[in-house]
Amino acid sequence: MEFTVGQIAQLLDGQVEGDATAKIRELAKIEEAGSGALAFLSNLKYEHFLYATGATAVIVAKNFTPKQPVPAALIRVEDPYSSFSRLLEEYQKAVAALKTGVEQPAFIGNNSNIGENHYRGAFSYIGHNCKLGANVKIYPQAYLGDNVQVGDNTTIFAGAKIYSNTVIGNNCTVHAGAVIGSPGFGFAPQKDGTYRDIPQTGNVVLEDNVNIGANTTIDCATLGSTIVHEGTKIDNLVQIAHNVEIGKHTVIASQTGISGSTKIGNYCTIAGQVGIVGHISLADKTTVGAQSGVSKTISESGTIIQGSPAFDYKQNLRCIAVFRRLPELEKQLNELKEKI
Amino acid sequence: MEFTVGQIAQLLDGQVEGDATAKIRELAKIEEAGSGALAFLSNLKYEHFLYATGATAVIVAKNFTPKQPVPAALIRVEDPYSSFSRLLEEYQKAVAALKTGVEQPAFIGNNSNIGENHYRGAFSYIGHNCKLGANVKIYPQAYLGDNVQVGDNTTIFAGAKIYSNTVIGNNCTVHAGAVIGSPGFGFAPQKDGTYRDIPQTGNVVLEDNVNIGANTTIDCATLGSTIVHEGTKIDNLVQIAHNVEIGKHTVIASQTGISGSTKIGNYCTIAGQVGIVGHISLADKTTVGAQSGVSKTISESGTIIQGSPAFDYKQNLRCIAVFRRLPELEKQLNELKEKI
Amino acid sequence: MEFTVGQIAQLLDGQVEGDATAKIRELAKIEEAGSGALAFLSNLKYEHFLYATGATAVIVAKNFTPKQPVPAALIRVEDPYSSFSRLLEEYQKAVAALKTGVEQPAFIGNNSNIGENHYRGAFSYIGHNCKLGANVKIYPQAYLGDNVQVGDNTTIFAGAKIYSNTVIGNNCTVHAGAVIGSPGFGFAPQKDGTYRDIPQTGNVVLEDNVNIGANTTIDCATLGSTIVHEGTKIDNLVQIAHNVEIGKHTVIASQTGISGSTKIGNYCTIAGQVGIVGHISLADKTTVGAQSGVSKTISESGTIIQGSPAFDYKQNLRCIAVFRRLPELEKQLNELKEKI
Repeated sequence: MEFTVGQIAQLLDGQVEGDATAKIRELAKIEEAGSGALAFLSNLKYEHFLYATGATAVIVAKNFTPKQPVPAALIRVEDPYSSFSRLLEEYQKAVAALKTGVEQPAFIGNNSNIGENHYRGAFSYIGHNCKLGANVKIYPQAYLGDNVQVGDNTTIFAGAKIYSNTVIGNNCTVHAGAVIGSPGFGFAPQKDGTYRDIPQTGNVVLEDNVNIGANTTIDCATLGSTIVHEGTKIDNLVQIAHNVEIGKHTVIASQTGISGSTKIGNYCTIAGQVGIVGHISLADKTTVGAQSGVSKTISESGTIIQGSPAFDYKQNLRCIAVFRRLPELEKQLNELKEKI
Repeated sequence: MEFTVGQIAQLLDGQVEGDATAKIRELAKIEEAGSGALAFLSNLKYEHFLYATGATAVIVAKNFTPKQPVPAALIRVEDPYSSFSRLLEEYQKAVAALKTGVEQPAFIGNNSNIGENHYRGAFSYIGHNCKLGANVKIYPQAYLGDNVQVGDNTTIFAGAKIYSNTVIGNNCTVHAGAVIGSPGFGFAPQKDGTYRDIPQTGNVVLEDNVNIGANTTIDCATLGSTIVHEGTKIDNLVQIAHNVEIGKHTVIASQTGISGSTKIGNYCTIAGQVGIVGHISLADKTTVGAQSGVSKTISESGTIIQGSPAFDYKQNLRCIAVFRRLPELEKQLNELKEKI
Repeated sequence: MEFTVGQIAQLLDGQVEGDATAKIRELAKIEEAGSGALAFLSNLKYEHFLYATGATAVIVAKNFTPKQPVPAALIRVEDPYSSFSRLLEEYQKAVAALKTGVEQPAFIGNNSNIGENHYRGAFSYIGHNCKLGANVKIYPQAYLGDNVQVGDNTTIFAGAKIYSNTVIGNNCTVHAGAVIGSPGFGFAPQKDGTYRDIPQTGNVVLEDNVNIGANTTIDCATLGSTIVHEGTKIDNLVQIAHNVEIGKHTVIASQTGISGSTKIGNYCTIAGQVGIVGHISLADKTTVGAQSGVSKTISESGTIIQGSPAFDYKQNLRCIAVFRRLPELEKQLNELKEKI
């Protein structure tokens, strides 16, 4: 995709200073931008980059006055950061819009249907009795088992695996390699020390506006549903076990694991590499620090915890501070003992 | 699949109270069941759900006497929980049995053969010189390299990747996205600070009745085999490094990592997010608590450890209790010093 | 592949003692080797295995004198370990060389080209405007989006997913299930507690001689590039967030996670299950112990840290030693208080 500086200025309701016919092919940071790139200057801390930029054009504020000659065309707008963000979104939409139609071979089972304006990449697989909405994009090598439902405007990226009976809402994104709906880790110990499979016949429900990161795994429920409520964002390599329920607008960072039947509230923030045991619940707006191990229910909204096992965030910081002085403390204690 | 209440009662050797011709399409929890669903009531703690259930039928004990009118048909059996479990297993078998034959296109190399009654999904890949048993199911987009052996009744789910020379036993399950047999992380440091690949020419052996979770990775041995012995169950996102050997009937929970050449005994239980260093061994029936870091060989059977680094479970609990009082302890120590 | 003992001796410039016509089909450890296998004896600690080996031939040192009869042919060379390593490398090259040509169906988009002597496995997908070098191997079900560049001699294993605009150098290996270039975890919190996507329009750059382990995920930059510099080796299930930069010849072990915009130096060693927060930097030759949580910039080259949060490695060891005596310390402190 290629636009002129003038076309972009028009889109942003901005004014061009310099060559309006110059061609823009990409968006870049002002300090890294080369020929054909458009950058922006919002925070004047970075003003010195402007005078040395390789960018073809730079978005600046309407009232900005350069102190030196600028080697790029300027596009003057009300709010450079917002304008640039808007371009990023437009760019992403434009790239996504390029994907439409069906690349062959692609597999679709019996009694499955899919709404208008969809994309199905080569080697994508949709099982039997699936129902997919409009503007859905199923990238190459993605897999949807039988009886899967997917809402409008949802994108399943390359090689994501959606087991049978999964229900996915509107405006969701499932990234490459994520596995949704695999049978949970349920094994009944037998008297002889061996294990027997406990059938896992439930499913996974992802509500609207949910994002699932690359290579994340979400197990189906034993019975009923493992649920991720609307607007929740889950990072890469996260593990969500069977029968877990995650509230609305919660954020879970990479490599965190949540054990079976635990309930996470709304508007929670779970940092990376956290482990949460099974069969507990976290109140709304709970914040869990990185690498914490959560072993008990959190009942009070807005609690902040840290540590393995996790407890009050501030108290944990105090304890860690003393931990680092432990050899000195022990020495002092021994000196006292000798004195007495 | 659809059955009548009467057909299910017959299968379970139970007696119907109510409409034996009503149709059952799914199994559900008594508190979540809707029309067309079959639930069960075993623990009388949940009896109140029975009187408000939306289920079409509920399995109850032979001698159960309702205290109120029940809106569902009843199926009376000796042991409701066992009967329901049996139905879950039958359901799962029936669903699995639907997958048979070959969906095109599917790739199979030269000199490879596969037993009767198998399923090969579309876009599945089987390399050259592979030997697969009867009733094997290779789901869409699964990959088996060259010289792979797979026993009877084993299922490889969508997009699992089995590198060349892997040997998989009977009745195994490899879930979506798991990678079995990738070359281990072996790099020889050179004098100039760079690294050189150490060729990894061994393989992975999974014995009978082994389950491998979604997106788990098991590296092949440098020479010889990385081995998972029979009946062992491995959860999602677990890392097993080269030349590791895991005993029989051991359970390893999600996001645990085991470093190279370590041996895990039989009947062990390794919780989630555990890290185990290389070149050590864990005795039979060792239990390792969640998020532990195991840095030393455990020689005594039945040992329970916890912590990072891990040591005796109970002592670790005691230490953690004092850890949380450290600021107070330091204060007391300082007060003592002033007194003397 | 099958060679005679004599052919192998010739390749290694060695001398045969025993049957030079015997057939060799595989390489094995001396204690595990069976008929048709070639083993080696370098460290004389393992000499006793020689007299009981099932190997068809064993590589030994020129001047080695057996103390008992040996059941295998001997190949005498200058340095048995080096000779065996060379065979391993030759074996791996030979196996890799078998993969060439295109297995159908394989997808390649418009304006994409690929150098001579390449392999494209069945169900592999290469998008539009891609440029791939010579001797490239794209295994079955691997995915390359649009505008991807790949250098010479690089191998993308089965089911790896390379998002659009990724740049990969020469002699790289990306293992099965790895996801390179997925959009980073960028969500702007809104006033109402919901999150809005921040478009991620940058890419990932892997320089020459980089290895990426199975199911590892590397996010693209928001703008600009997430970069892994030359010679760096990354293990399985590692998470690299957006805008991270990793130096040259650094090693990162399994299940480690690096948060956004952090810079890792050259020649660093990061052990397994480490977490590193965002927006910090680690000096060259930093070593981070397993399961550590790194929360602060490390400025001094050669620093060794450990713990969560991580600090000086030796001091951490001392603190842990006292931690394990905490209940005893508390008891002593209480006794002192009573005395006074």
